[in-house]
Amino acid sequence: MTALLLSREDLCFQLYDWLHAESLLSAPRFAAHSRETFDAVIDSCERLGGDVLLPCHALSDREEPGFDGEAVRLPDAVVEAVRALAASGLVAATQDDAVGGLQLPVLVEKAAQAWLSAANIGACAYPMLTAGNASLLLAHGSPAQVEAFALPQLRGEWTGTMCLSEPQAGSSLSDITTRAEYERDTPLGPRYRLSGRKMWISGGEHTILGNIVHLVLAKVPDADGRLPQGTRGISLFIVPRTLTADEGGERNDVSLAGINHKLGYRATVNCALNFGEGRFRPQGRAGAVGYLVGKPGDGLACMFHLMNEARIGVGLGAAALGYTAYLHALDYARNRPQGRLPGPAGKDASQPQVPLVAHADVRRMLLAQKCYAEGGLGLVLACARLVDEQRIAREAGDGEAAASKQRLLDLLTPVVKSWPSQWCLAGNDLAIQVHGGYGYTRDYRVEQLWRDNRLNAIHEGTHGIQGIDLLGRKVAMHDGAAFEAYVRMVEATLSRAAGGGCAELADALAARLARLREVTAALLRVDDPVARLANASAYLEAFGHVTVAWVWLDQVLALGGRDDGFARGKRQAARWFMRWELPRVDAWLDRLADNDDTALAMRDEWF
Amino acid sequence: MTALLLSREDLCFQLYDWLHAESLLSAPRFAAHSRETFDAVIDSCERLGGDVLLPCHALSDREEPGFDGEAVRLPDAVVEAVRALAASGLVAATQDDAVGGLQLPVLVEKAAQAWLSAANIGACAYPMLTAGNASLLLAHGSPAQVEAFALPQLRGEWTGTMCLSEPQAGSSLSDITTRAEYERDTPLGPRYRLSGRKMWISGGEHTILGNIVHLVLAKVPDADGRLPQGTRGISLFIVPRTLTADEGGERNDVSLAGINHKLGYRATVNCALNFGEGRFRPQGRAGAVGYLVGKPGDGLACMFHLMNEARIGVGLGAAALGYTAYLHALDYARNRPQGRLPGPAGKDASQPQVPLVAHADVRRMLLAQKCYAEGGLGLVLACARLVDEQRIAREAGDGEAAASKQRLLDLLTPVVKSWPSQWCLAGNDLAIQVHGGYGYTRDYRVEQLWRDNRLNAIHEGTHGIQGIDLLGRKVAMHDGAAFEAYVRMVEATLSRAAGGGCAELADALAARLARLREVTAALLRVDDPVARLANASAYLEAFGHVTVAWVWLDQVLALGGRDDGFARGKRQAARWFMRWELPRVDAWLDRLADNDDTALAMRDEWF
Repeated sequence: MTALLLSREDLCFQLYDWLHAESLLSAPRFAAHSRETFDAVIDSCERLGGDVLLPCHALSDREEPGFDGEAVRLPDAVVEAVRALAASGLVAATQDDAVGGLQLPVLVEKAAQAWLSAANIGACAYPMLTAGNASLLLAHGSPAQVEAFALPQLRGEWTGTMCLSEPQAGSSLSDITTRAEYERDTPLGPRYRLSGRKMWISGGEHTILGNIVHLVLAKVPDADGRLPQGTRGISLFIVPRTLTADEGGERNDVSLAGINHKLGYRATVNCALNFGEGRFRPQGRAGAVGYLVGKPGDGLACMFHLMNEARIGVGLGAAALGYTAYLHALDYARNRPQGRLPGPAGKDASQPQVPLVAHADVRRMLLAQKCYAEGGLGLVLACARLVDEQRIAREAGDGEAAASKQRLLDLLTPVVKSWPSQWCLAGNDLAIQVHGGYGYTRDYRVEQLWRDNRLNAIHEGTHGIQGIDLLGRKVAMHDGAAFEAYVRMVEATLSRAAGGGCAELADALAARLARLREVTAALLRVDDPVARLANASAYLEAFGHVTVAWVWLDQVLALGGRDDGFARGKRQAARWFMRWELPRVDAWLDRLADNDDTALAMRDEWF
Repeated sequence: MTALLLSREDLCFQLYDWLHAESLLSAPRFAAHSRETFDAVIDSCERLGGDVLLPCHALSDREEPGFDGEAVRLPDAVVEAVRALAASGLVAATQDDAVGGLQLPVLVEKAAQAWLSAANIGACAYPMLTAGNASLLLAHGSPAQVEAFALPQLRGEWTGTMCLSEPQAGSSLSDITTRAEYERDTPLGPRYRLSGRKMWISGGEHTILGNIVHLVLAKVPDADGRLPQGTRGISLFIVPRTLTADEGGERNDVSLAGINHKLGYRATVNCALNFGEGRFRPQGRAGAVGYLVGKPGDGLACMFHLMNEARIGVGLGAAALGYTAYLHALDYARNRPQGRLPGPAGKDASQPQVPLVAHADVRRMLLAQKCYAEGGLGLVLACARLVDEQRIAREAGDGEAAASKQRLLDLLTPVVKSWPSQWCLAGNDLAIQVHGGYGYTRDYRVEQLWRDNRLNAIHEGTHGIQGIDLLGRKVAMHDGAAFEAYVRMVEATLSRAAGGGCAELADALAARLARLREVTAALLRVDDPVARLANASAYLEAFGHVTVAWVWLDQVLALGGRDDGFARGKRQAARWFMRWELPRVDAWLDRLADNDDTALAMRDEWF
């Protein structure tokens, strides 16, 4: 509790009372589990977060990763923390028993992971990327590739990365120029030699564990040596830092080109990597050895498997950072005496000062943070439950139900990635403000949490990219089936709310859902994609607020007749969200309904 | 231009075309000036900012102030930059010729200062505090105090501070416990010995210049040794770091208790100071020697002279940080190729990538930044002009006009302090976003500007304090005369806009002004001050947005028939502000009209 990472009471409420985690136990996949095993996993992550990750959070910021001419160095405590994470079994937690996993629901895994992210999000990037990397290989790799590259990651012996961006192509993957030349077939798949430069590689170079499995997007040249254009020409390769013993066991031709010096999130070393520059010469020649995953040209589709998991992970991390900052602000506000209430009584300086939390303006800031933190976490957990539901349906052979859950998850992926990244950052800002001048010093944790969280609106697809994904792709896909499923989900909650004691909350949400439907339909009628997507970020933000309003209403319904302090706090926060937060969307939706062209019509030369 | 600090074209437009700086020349006080002298001062600050301050901005962040056991150390380049600022004459620029000043309009001084703040805001804190300190002494000090303590500061030989907060009393000044015991009368005024601890003292200890003049709030005990309660018991003292030669020339009993390690703004050393702990013993005994300024009990009134100047300075700094970040984002967006436009043509990877600025979403972020930066700067300059107008009226013997201008300035002071601190910080956030991953690295300037700017919503009175000042004091004072003057100011602009080509802009503003008046009247009818002020921050934010909407409409009117790129950009930004920004206030004003009690009714134990 003193670590102030998350509220276990709220987490259990969300997990068991709201999202009914125990109902998952009836699925064959989770039959070996019980509420006790769920709680045990959460217990162990709460301890790991508080005892191992949190103590090196400030240190990992103060002593950022550096290259000493031989190797990338991180503080010993950070190295040990990442090793402890790898040893915890969390990387494989949701995977099949057959590959060493625990077959844990993703819902429970995310609830457990939240403690780690709240403690030191930068240290968590290694196991999260490793889990995503292994998961991709399990889905798309050959049995030999799984054996050689996924299993060591799942066992916590190696780490993994995703290598997409290049210096000249950040969000624009069709413009990558990393080249993969076919060499020969091997038991590990068709072997290529890669050359090119990759940027923003988290965990790209270090010696924390035994090896690093890079998953690299590259293009295979045609007979004339030209690279295919566009995203369809992109293939995916496994490029291990050190080759397997069967392949010679040498250091591969992947070298560190530079370490990025970041604003926060510093336990994660983030690198520029050169592939095939000739610094290392496996089997006597330059070129990074890579093994094709899946078919040529399928690279982006495979990578989105990892990206989509990573996007939920980003949302989780953002929510966890907002959550722990909120608890720190609350703790400070309860314990810091400061001033007196307005009015004549407040001018009596013979009376003791009141705690900060006694001031309505401080409660305003705490309520907003509570809305963002608990609402953001709820959004992430609701999406995590969809992953489980999709899998249960698939394993039960109910393809239609599985597809329906998957569509809803696909629709919500840009929202779960971006909403916590935006609003839990706003919560971090408020946490600083509650601390006053102390919040601006490095003696308190809130400033680092704010800096750490700033990354989340950027990596794994910027806010703008998520908006285009939502409005340009997701709401229209399958003839709008995903959007309709979303509307039905919200309407189901509204139906349950009808006639109950939360008419104000339900009415507020119902009005915005109706407006969102109108606006969505209007936008989909705009033929010109440039015009339709001009305000996609505003659409994303409005969609996000409506969705989190749904989270809040649904959580209030899950309280039932409960009337203790916890329940009253939830209801008050929900009221806050509906009264002060949700109305933000009205102006955005009005502009979207007009398909406002102010940004579109602005010309470069007028700035 | 390459320094990307501010737009000289916009600054000149705001100064000369919008705020008619040349019309000030007809006042006797400014008769020796001309547009040429105004421009020369701005030129020199532009050069000083670009050539001296900017080059040490990143350095001052990397190597923060430290105490080496003997003295506070700052990097040499920072020390030299602060000395160059002191030598520039800017500290005395607005003061009378008789005390070595230039009698420059405050309007022009702020326009010049903006270049320095944009270059290295932390370095600017020294001269800004020094100017405020000297200004207070000119207004409230005795001739001997002016001679001994104000003039060396005005000559750029010494620096000054303001010492208000204490560790147990941040924003609650009535709870300070620093004690001042009367010692004897001196030519410098009644001499006291002070003891107590002061916190958050910017420029509190260093050896950059010859001496430091601390202005310290303290209480004089009664005959029984008890400190008077409340703010009326607070007196103001001059406590020099080193005593004057006449007073023995010894080191005073003021010692460094600690340096705060901040999130940004690091060129400014920020200290905890112990007064009278006995580390130094001037004239053989412990106790910091201080000279009473004005009458006992007048301390807070005197200090507000300095605070109000400092609050305009905070707004200016925040606007300058937002402005330079905007220019950096614009420059990056113009030069960074990234992706293609949505639609079929955009999928043709054989075409070159487009610059970021070609994307509507990036233009959205740039438009918002332009609104915040140019609008924030305009708000500050409009307030600076009020300072000049008040002074001109006073010197012309027109007490009523002077009082009217002063009231309007008093009303706007919390707004000019808080609006740029909030929204130009939001602009800094967008500047990072435009840079993508690069914006998260320390290779680009925008992350430091974001960190620097985060202080501005905290120091010189937090956002919450400004809200209470505005709603709890300013709108009600003089029977609402200040608020009425504000309404007339906005209405005058609306009248000029009537029948012109900006009906949409004017209508948007008129509707919100009317609503603000209704809401203000409704809130003033709420008797219970706790209830009335519960949402004071929302009131402040709504008031600020309405005010900046006025800035934008008024600037558009000042364009007249101009139709070049600059004018079109201004009009488009104004349209953006009215369509996307101003509607934010509707929800806030609705909740304020209801006097919503959600935050007020929230209980500590429900969090």
